[in-house]
Amino acid sequence: MPDKTLPQIFKFVDQNVDSYKQLLKEAVAIPSVSSDIKYREDCVRMVNWMKNKLQEVGATTELRDVGFQTIDGKEVKLPPVLIGSLGKDAKKNTICIYGHLDVQPALKSDGWNSEPFELQERDGKLFGRGATDDKGPVLGWLHAINAYKGVGEELPVNLKFVFECMEESGSEGLDELLIEQLKPEGFFKDVDYVCISDNYWLGTTKPCITYGLRGISYYFLEVECAKNDLHSGVYGGTVHEAMSDLIYLMDQLVDKDGKILITDIYKSVAPLTENEKQLYASIDFDPEAYRRTINAYKLAHNGDKEQLLMHRWRYPSLSLHGIEGAAFQPGAKTVIPGKVIGKFSIRIVPNQEPEEVEKLVFDYIHKKWAERGSPNKMSISAQSGRAWTENPDHPHYQAAARATKLIYQTDPDMSREGGSIPVTITLQEASGRNVLLLPMGAGDDMAHSQNEKLNLRNYIEGIKLFAAYLYEVGKLSK
Amino acid sequence: MPDKTLPQIFKFVDQNVDSYKQLLKEAVAIPSVSSDIKYREDCVRMVNWMKNKLQEVGATTELRDVGFQTIDGKEVKLPPVLIGSLGKDAKKNTICIYGHLDVQPALKSDGWNSEPFELQERDGKLFGRGATDDKGPVLGWLHAINAYKGVGEELPVNLKFVFECMEESGSEGLDELLIEQLKPEGFFKDVDYVCISDNYWLGTTKPCITYGLRGISYYFLEVECAKNDLHSGVYGGTVHEAMSDLIYLMDQLVDKDGKILITDIYKSVAPLTENEKQLYASIDFDPEAYRRTINAYKLAHNGDKEQLLMHRWRYPSLSLHGIEGAAFQPGAKTVIPGKVIGKFSIRIVPNQEPEEVEKLVFDYIHKKWAERGSPNKMSISAQSGRAWTENPDHPHYQAAARATKLIYQTDPDMSREGGSIPVTITLQEASGRNVLLLPMGAGDDMAHSQNEKLNLRNYIEGIKLFAAYLYEVGKLSK
Ligand SMILES: [Zn+2]
Ligand SMILES: [Zn+2]
Ligand SMILES: [Zn+2]
Ligand SMILES: [Zn+2]
Repeated sequence: MPDKTLPQIFKFVDQNVDSYKQLLKEAVAIPSVSSDIKYREDCVRMVNWMKNKLQEVGATTELRDVGFQTIDGKEVKLPPVLIGSLGKDAKKNTICIYGHLDVQPALKSDGWNSEPFELQERDGKLFGRGATDDKGPVLGWLHAINAYKGVGEELPVNLKFVFECMEESGSEGLDELLIEQLKPEGFFKDVDYVCISDNYWLGTTKPCITYGLRGISYYFLEVECAKNDLHSGVYGGTVHEAMSDLIYLMDQLVDKDGKILITDIYKSVAPLTENEKQLYASIDFDPEAYRRTINAYKLAHNGDKEQLLMHRWRYPSLSLHGIEGAAFQPGAKTVIPGKVIGKFSIRIVPNQEPEEVEKLVFDYIHKKWAERGSPNKMSISAQSGRAWTENPDHPHYQAAARATKLIYQTDPDMSREGGSIPVTITLQEASGRNVLLLPMGAGDDMAHSQNEKLNLRNYIEGIKLFAAYLYEVGKLSK
Repeated sequence: MPDKTLPQIFKFVDQNVDSYKQLLKEAVAIPSVSSDIKYREDCVRMVNWMKNKLQEVGATTELRDVGFQTIDGKEVKLPPVLIGSLGKDAKKNTICIYGHLDVQPALKSDGWNSEPFELQERDGKLFGRGATDDKGPVLGWLHAINAYKGVGEELPVNLKFVFECMEESGSEGLDELLIEQLKPEGFFKDVDYVCISDNYWLGTTKPCITYGLRGISYYFLEVECAKNDLHSGVYGGTVHEAMSDLIYLMDQLVDKDGKILITDIYKSVAPLTENEKQLYASIDFDPEAYRRTINAYKLAHNGDKEQLLMHRWRYPSLSLHGIEGAAFQPGAKTVIPGKVIGKFSIRIVPNQEPEEVEKLVFDYIHKKWAERGSPNKMSISAQSGRAWTENPDHPHYQAAARATKLIYQTDPDMSREGGSIPVTITLQEASGRNVLLLPMGAGDDMAHSQNEKLNLRNYIEGIKLFAAYLYEVGKLSK
């Protein structure tokens, strides 16, 4: 491949901005909310839409049925997973690309400035649900492939695709498909590298490549005092209320500074080496800008940059999410809830194992419950996924770093993330290959929140970055 | 009026059971949910339905416009209040009857065994939203009037009616109508007695008449840590989370046995006299049956009958209702809520004044907040209504007791209630007359809850009770 290929591609990309925007607009307009079965047909429509796009660039595709999920006791069909492959040249490296086509729920009334499912450009930003998580990045791959075709060059690598539509709802059915079907069928046999673009830069200006994610251990803490909800006027003063028991237990979990109070919870956290500590100093991260983005009154750890990074990436954190079964509406509802389920989660880190963390939490809650001495019924259950890290010195990471530098004229930060992308671990296990997270969007994109956006610059330069990444991986020795 | 009038009326009532059921079925079928503007037209329809029924028994009626309410910044028209009057004989006593035509929300999926807005008879019980609260009692008055007509007797009293359709949503607009319009217009000039049937027997077998209600002081406790909701993976460990602050504050309010922890909160509660203490012993109340009705694991106060009654009627209780702004859905939502509003209320009693209780709560919360030392923003606001009691030895109460004994062959308990019916105080103020609460339904009717019902026996004997009550009040000296 001649050296002028990438400059030609970059030019081609710059000439096709309008069509890239148009395609993202189309994708955002399909409200593929996976958590609400009302939108299940839109999810299926979204998968088919993407299937057609992949076919248009020459990929062979397949929709894989992954069975049913159970909602309120009813069996509901899961959206199919879109599998694809493009190129079978034995001399080329093969990259497996993962992305997701589903989105978080969004209503204009939640506080959006424009309709969430109508992509709108304002101040160089493309606002819309899924713009950055994860429709923009998924389309980025499509456009990068198309750009090679546009300049008349063949792809420097073979590609395999795994695009699902249940990521925001626990990727139901995906693990079984990857491990029990695709792997035995040999889908991963030729795969040399795995790449996922489903996360964000640390800040808003400097690119990064991500080699670590926290895991999650999510808890359902249930207290029941009565069969039904009760009227507080009639029953208040005569029952041991489930809410006060639950609030008591939830107040035992974390202190005001975010320190987790669960006995021994920090014991197995990987010790901080002097080497790792050095890494944080050089990372481009502006605590004050970060604070302003979320409009927090004050950040934890007195806003200290290194402490903040460490508590996002390498220390566990505990968040209280809410209570199911209690009053949640505006207004003055006077119910005594009969059964309430407190939701909280711990973001877990190397070397915390989910089973070990769950046991510590269960033991702690049962101890606190015994101390409470309530006559009510309490139970706790959990869903967990491990933390993940890769070696950032791997040639695959170096190739991605070269591609990034070519686009952004700066060495990317080697970063970790506080969130979990459970498929990362599954793909690592299924392929046995090095997995890399290559973010397209910026740190203030507000994924999962109101007014999610993708900067136009990140979208367009991201397409170039993906093209350059394919080029650089193509040069790695087979 | 001849002595055989009441026996004739009772016979007439027994002959018309089917039509009484049919009319209640019609009323229940109108989903007049006042808290949800989706049902606002049904509320208006319900008021008009009742207007026609009153006209059919000869009452003159009027719909009174009570203006607008503000919902999410929008002005929404309130349902009109139905005013009526029947009879103007200066030699007769005049009773003002209050009832409400609106209902609590209800969905079959909340755990109803049948459609909430389709009245269904099972095991001698009429299940349906509003059956007992308050459509059954309101129709009871209509049927009682009709029964006098049916046997060819004139009513022994004049009647005035106030039927509203916003009771379950704070009776918006009603106080102004009663105090600022109806009172100056002379609506209450002829009124000698006020009667409200919108509460329940203490248990399931023995009737009661009610002379006291607790008030309510409802609190909105708001904590804000960030402008938007945040992703717990990305931000967990770097912000002071509003939820943990709120949970901490909510955990300071009440202990596991229901003792309120707010400083000096019990100080102004009317002392328990030896005389009052004696009253509780004779009251028919079975704690174990009460416990079974709600399927609680264990009642407060070790299930002691007198303690339970006192803590329902004459001591304040505090309930934690829920949290607005936090995750409330089934499933594993991983949000860090940016702003949360904790809801709790205190049922207040004689001689607690709302202003005094609010000040104690505000002071206590601000003190606990200072102790917490969180950098987040906290605020608290309240809505309150006073407690109410009447003298149960008043001739009006004696008349109602005679009527009750005639129907149920037992002296009714003179009871109080734990809930609040704010209009009671307003009607007392507007009329300057003795107010009496005459319940139709039983203590296990589950008003406001799933599977609300009215026993067929309570409905039919209740119609007779209302007829006998009109008869007895008719005999009171003018
Ligand atoms: Zn995503
Ligand atoms: Zn996401
Ligand atoms: Zn009511
Ligand atoms: Zn009610």
